[in-house]
This record gives sequence, structure tokens and C-alpha cells, in this order.
Amino acid sequence: MRDDASSLDEYGTDALKRGHPADLVVMPGTTAEVSAIAELCNAARVPLVPRGAGTGYTGGAVPVQGGVVLSLERLNRILEIDEANLLAIVQPAVITGHLQEAVERIGLFYPPDPASLGRSSIGGNVAECAGGPRAFKYGTTKRYVLGLEAVLPSGEVVRTGGKTVKNVVGYDLTQLLVGSEGTLAIVTEIILRLMPLPPAHATMRATFTSVEAAVSAVIGIVRARVVPAVLELIDADSLTAVERYFGQSLAPTGTQAMLIVETDGFESVVHDEIRQVEAACRVADATDVRIANDEAERQEIWRLRREMSYALRTIASLKFNHDIVVPKGRIPELFALIDRLRTTYAMRIPCFGHVGDGNIHVNLMVDKDDEAAVKRVPQVERELFEGVVALEGSITGEHGIGFAKARYLPLELSPQTIALMQRVKRAFDPNNILNPGKIFPA
Amino acid sequence: MRDDASSLDEYGTDALKRGHPADLVVMPGTTAEVSAIAELCNAARVPLVPRGAGTGYTGGAVPVQGGVVLSLERLNRILEIDEANLLAIVQPAVITGHLQEAVERIGLFYPPDPASLGRSSIGGNVAECAGGPRAFKYGTTKRYVLGLEAVLPSGEVVRTGGKTVKNVVGYDLTQLLVGSEGTLAIVTEIILRLMPLPPAHATMRATFTSVEAAVSAVIGIVRARVVPAVLELIDADSLTAVERYFGQSLAPTGTQAMLIVETDGFESVVHDEIRQVEAACRVADATDVRIANDEAERQEIWRLRREMSYALRTIASLKFNHDIVVPKGRIPELFALIDRLRTTYAMRIPCFGHVGDGNIHVNLMVDKDDEAAVKRVPQVERELFEGVVALEGSITGEHGIGFAKARYLPLELSPQTIALMQRVKRAFDPNNILNPGKIFPA
Repeated sequence: MRDDASSLDEYGTDALKRGHPADLVVMPGTTAEVSAIAELCNAARVPLVPRGAGTGYTGGAVPVQGGVVLSLERLNRILEIDEANLLAIVQPAVITGHLQEAVERIGLFYPPDPASLGRSSIGGNVAECAGGPRAFKYGTTKRYVLGLEAVLPSGEVVRTGGKTVKNVVGYDLTQLLVGSEGTLAIVTEIILRLMPLPPAHATMRATFTSVEAAVSAVIGIVRARVVPAVLELIDADSLTAVERYFGQSLAPTGTQAMLIVETDGFESVVHDEIRQVEAACRVADATDVRIANDEAERQEIWRLRREMSYALRTIASLKFNHDIVVPKGRIPELFALIDRLRTTYAMRIPCFGHVGDGNIHVNLMVDKDDEAAVKRVPQVERELFEGVVALEGSITGEHGIGFAKARYLPLELSPQTIALMQRVKRAFDPNNILNPGKIFPA
Repeated sequence: MRDDASSLDEYGTDALKRGHPADLVVMPGTTAEVSAIAELCNAARVPLVPRGAGTGYTGGAVPVQGGVVLSLERLNRILEIDEANLLAIVQPAVITGHLQEAVERIGLFYPPDPASLGRSSIGGNVAECAGGPRAFKYGTTKRYVLGLEAVLPSGEVVRTGGKTVKNVVGYDLTQLLVGSEGTLAIVTEIILRLMPLPPAHATMRATFTSVEAAVSAVIGIVRARVVPAVLELIDADSLTAVERYFGQSLAPTGTQAMLIVETDGFESVVHDEIRQVEAACRVADATDVRIANDEAERQEIWRLRREMSYALRTIASLKFNHDIVVPKGRIPELFALIDRLRTTYAMRIPCFGHVGDGNIHVNLMVDKDDEAAVKRVPQVERELFEGVVALEGSITGEHGIGFAKARYLPLELSPQTIALMQRVKRAFDPNNILNPGKIFPA
């Protein structure tokens, strides 16, 4: 338990950097302790905010109405890795990357790979339904959650799902809890499905003189019946930032988009597939195609993608990072919209991300001392989100709503759907003590 | 609209064959009509039971409390197949097999393949979260449902999810509705994710002198990092029934289990993988391994599996078909339990199914004229389900609870979890008019 000012601030903020101090921070070590804390808060009608590693981008772990922050950091053990049944049972504070290393050591695979995997926890990934580059082939966190132990605001402990990959007993509360941003229950144990680790990879990058050409390559790849593990796009603004950050040229002059593609599976097929990918890129007029010949060249390609967030810092001091998603055939229209916003608001907006899923990270870059620019951000956000919804897309594909996007929820969901979600919320949390002020507009 | 006695009976039963006559059958042709009917029933507190193709095994579409059966049969159109975005938009009464044929004609793939796919509808598949042999690699229906249009009991129309594969805006009502057995809302439109059609297959069968040996082969296959599309097991009782039905011997004397395995993907890898599968089977002491050399031999292997249900009819006139599921490493314990039941109750219990998922169809076969045997069925069911739960399994992996398994729900779920599900039910259907008498014990 902590109540010193520095802890209250530290546990009151996340990667969004718009925090609110907690009134108290507690670190329970058992499910029974989580239950007792919930019961107390519920009886006293005190806000209770579950917290994983605090790496979220939408303020999901921020106690916007004060109250008790319940950090799950002590529930940090891998309880079981069951090779025969391809599953792992973990506590919520296990770091995602640590779980991946542990299972890969015995030839197994936990695919979800959010950029934060070295720091974010499985519990946070479950709360937000984290994605990552491999989601194109392997899906997001939800596809791997088989069962949960969770504490309701009343203190009741429920178990959902179980150790089997199929289970249609009653309602799928497991999938309802995944992505519920800590507003329905506090997850205390997670049963995860694992897969056999793919034995081989092939990796390439290709450059194009337009986003349209890159998207047409993506559609050609799918037509060739290849399902790459990774299918990433980097736009010209982002590429320029990385080039400056690395101090080297990475693409031919005139490049407007780069694709990074990785296939995985048996040695016999990955090279076959990457050649199909190469062909699709050439048909789409790729200007430069490079296939990694060895692990060093593969890492060189990945470095480009992995250092992206750091590289963007060279553009401006503030980054408003939005993870919007559109049907992938509409990505050229999305980029046309972004170009209009760039021109209208004279704003740098580097974009990159998971083109196979239509899930693009759109980064509004402004200097923190440029007050006029900072003030324009909400207007740019609103136009971006309105445009995305008009393109049959969604305002968040990975980061969740938290409090940062709550006001935009009605852009995407009808009043009837929002009211239904609120009734579901009340079925779990009738007194609205669990992570209040999130998801729903005030 | 129909109210003649024969229609009321016909629409009052399903594949479980334990029906209850409807008071009225309606066949709306639009979402607006569905909405108007729901509003009327809700105002008058009349039970309203949505119905797909009536192929369910647990009475999900049976109006056990009478009332209005709402058949979705007129909402039977494929509205859109979007090749670039790998999705289809369909009305609920589209026959699953018809959708598969339509998308395969343009090189796309809708993987879920319940045995009933020639007759069952997508809407029913969504209501029950149907599975099938390909679920081992591709998952069940839920993995393919991106969005829904659904009518609430109040008549309100809500849209959940959408056209994107990633969407974390609010609660995942889509996944909550999948498998909710028509108790929460009436689904009127479905957005489905498609995949590229795998270009090639390799198929084999292998026999073993024990179920343990077959399961050890399955675990060996996974260790070899192969993810087959299909991984099916047939036990000795089932095999004998097929042999009698076909009038030919299919396996060496002493066979206790047969595996059917199919790999799919690029030509370059499927044969590689099937050789790995073969090796794993030989390590596990397979007595006879046959790899299909051509499509005719492949179809011969599949015929074995496909004719299973018909073959079982040669054993006895009544089949109580249970789709239990256990972690696959515990399948030998499951078969030990089934052997005990066979001996104790002198009952024929042929078993077969999706061993990769641990999902085994356990068929209690009794002659309908043998009253004593028919009377013993509930006791055998209870012991089977108790045993499955003790093996960390689930009492249904594919068919749902309906009313046939409702009394067994407390074997698997705690009172707290059941109460929570009932609160969720009330959030959708406060007057309990939608498919009452299902899932929850009376």
C-alpha cells in the first residue's frame, strides 16, 4: 500500500501522459486480497482502478475520478506451461515478452506482439485486446484467451472458459472481458492458448511511389493465396524520420510507401511464399525489392520498423498516436483524407502500421511549445475519426477507448448500442465503481 | 405466417427430436419486420423463439414454452462478397455450404465446417458457435464473425463490430452474441471474415492398437510443429459400425483407434507436413499408415468420416449425441471413463471426433424399444458430464446447451457465474421473452 505523493502520481499516469493522482495505491498478492479490496471499495462506493504495466495509450489505467489504484504487479508468475495441451496459465502482471521467451524455449509460440511487449503485461494486453504486426495471420490477444479468473466489483470471484479451445457453455464472458478495459472485472488469472513455434521465416521489404501501389501489392499478395505473418506499411513522412534518425538513406527518391513482409512456417514454404510476395510487389510496380538473405539482414529490416516510435520523436515533441482501422481496400482513401488534414492544418502526420489489417497508426506531431498547434489537435482528431467512420472503419483497432477517446464513441456507435453496453456494464458493476469515466462519454 | 397444426409441429422441433408445438410461426422478410414482431411480443410478454434451419442437437430452436417461432428462412441472401477486403455480408438463412461454394469459386475460403453444413444456416451456426473438423487449425464460427446487425427484444436494432478485423471500441458484443443461442437478440445480418483458399491438401489415415497411442501421435505431430487443418479420431466401436455399414474391412485386427489427418496450404509444404505426420504416427507405433495419392483416395478417407453418423444408426435406433471436450492430453482418461460407462451400463458408446481440439462426439446408443436402457440415459449423461468436468473439460464444445443440457449447467459453472450470465441476459431481455427455457436450469 502506498500513499506518498510521488507514488500517487506515478500510479496515476500511463503512456498517454495525461494522468490524475490516485488517492491510494494497493498491491494485492492474491486473488483473495483483490476480492477483499473490491468488496471494500464497492461498499464504500470508492472508484477502483485496475492497473497493469501502465503502457496504455488511451489512459485506461488512469484514475480520472481518483480513488484506489489496484496494481496487479505482485501477481507476476507464470503458473504453468502445458506443452501437451498447448496452453499457459499466467498471472496478469507477467510481461508479454517474458512469456514469449519462456514458451519459445520449448518450441511453443504466443503470437500477439504489441510494440510494448518488453514492458506491457499480459493482463493489460487482455484488458485492451492488444494487437501487433503478427495479428494479420495470427489475430489479436482475444484469439489466445481461453479462460479467465476474474473478480467482480462485489468481490465475487468468477471463472470463465477453461482449458479447452472449444467451449459453448452459456455466454462467452471470456471474450466479453477481453478488451473491456478494466471496467467490468479485475482479471487475476489467464489461460492462454499457445501454438507450435513456426520453424522458419522469410522477410523482405519493397518500396513504391504511391500508397495506392503498395495497397495494390497487398491485395495481390492475398490473391496469390499467401497469408504472411507480417504485412506492414511505412509512409514517406515516417520513412524520412527514420532516415534522419539512422543518418542513412533507406529508399529510392520518390518513395511514398514501403512494405515490410514476413512469411513464417516450414522452411519448404516460406521462401516459396516470399517469392510470390515479391512477384505481387513487382506487378504493383515496386521500385526496390530486397529479400533478407540471412538473420542479420532480417534484423536490419525489422530495425526500421522497431525504431519507428523513437524516430518520430525527431519530428516534434508531442505525438498524438491514433490506431485507426479501415477495410484495407479503403486505405488509399484514408491516406487521401490524411493528406487533406496535413494541408489544412499544416501538421506533420507520419503514418505506419499493420496494412494487412487496415490498421494504421496515425501520429499527429506537434511541438509542445506551439500552443496554436496543440489547440488544433482535437479538431484534427475529430475530422480523422469522422472520416474513418465514413470509410466503414473504426476509431481504435488496438489501443482502446480509455478516457482519451470516450467523447468520440458516439461517432461510431449508435445511442442504442451505447445504452446496451451500459446495461452490460451495470450487470457487472451496478455501482459504477470499477474504472469509472472510461469508454462511455460523460 | 402459419398456424396450422402441421406447421406448428414442424417449426416446433429440431434435430434433437424432442419438440414442443409453436403457437404461431412467422417468417419476416426484413429487419424492420423482425423489429416490429419483437416489439409486439415484448409488449405482450409472449415468448419469441428465433429459428434457423432447425438442425441443432440441443433443442435451441424449440419453443419449449410455446409462443411465436420467428423463422429467418426468408432472410436468405448473400448480400456481398468483398474480395479485396476478404469479407462477406450475409443474411442469417444462407446455408453454410452455399456460402462456402460461392466464395471458393473466387479463390476465397470460409473455414467453419459443421457436419450439417449442407443444411444448417449461417445464422444458426452463429447462434450456436458451430465448429467442425477444420476448427483445429482455423477455429470455430466465432473467429470469422466480424460484425452483426441484431434486433433486441425491445425491437431496437443494434449494429456490433463492423468490416474491420480489428475493433476495440467498447465491449465486444459481437462475440457475446455468437453462441448465445438466440437468447439475447435476433441476428439479422452477419459480416464474415474470409481467407485465401489453401491451394493444396494432403490427407492420410493411420491405425493404432490403443487410444493412448493415437493421442501420443497427436502430441508428436504438434511437437513436430505441424498444424494440420484436420485431426480426427475414430474409436473401435465407431470403426466397426462403419465397416458393417460399408460391408468391408477398413483396419487391421486389434485396431482401437484411427486418426485422419489433413494438411493444407501451398503444394510445397503440404506433403512435407504429411510426412512429418506420418513419422509421428510411426513413432507412436501406428499399425497401418496410408497417405492418399490422389483426390479419389482422399475422398475415400473422407467418406469414412462423413458417413459416420449414418453408420451409427446400424447400432441402435436412438442416438444421444454429446459433444464433450477435454484438454487433449486427457483424452486417454476420457476414454477410460467411457469404458467404465460401457461396462457399468452395458451400453454401446461409439466415439469419434475432433481429437486435435479434445472435442469428442460421445454417442449413447440405445434401442427405442428398450425402455430400461432409455431410462438409464440421463444417469449415464450425468456421469459422463461429471467426469468431463473433473478432467478440466466442458460439457459442450459445439452444440450448445439449449434445453437438453440446461440441467447440467451447474456441473460446470459456479452459482456466481450463472447469476452473472443471467444479469447479462436481463441487460438484453429484461422481460425474458427471447427463447425462454434455454441455457439456464429451471
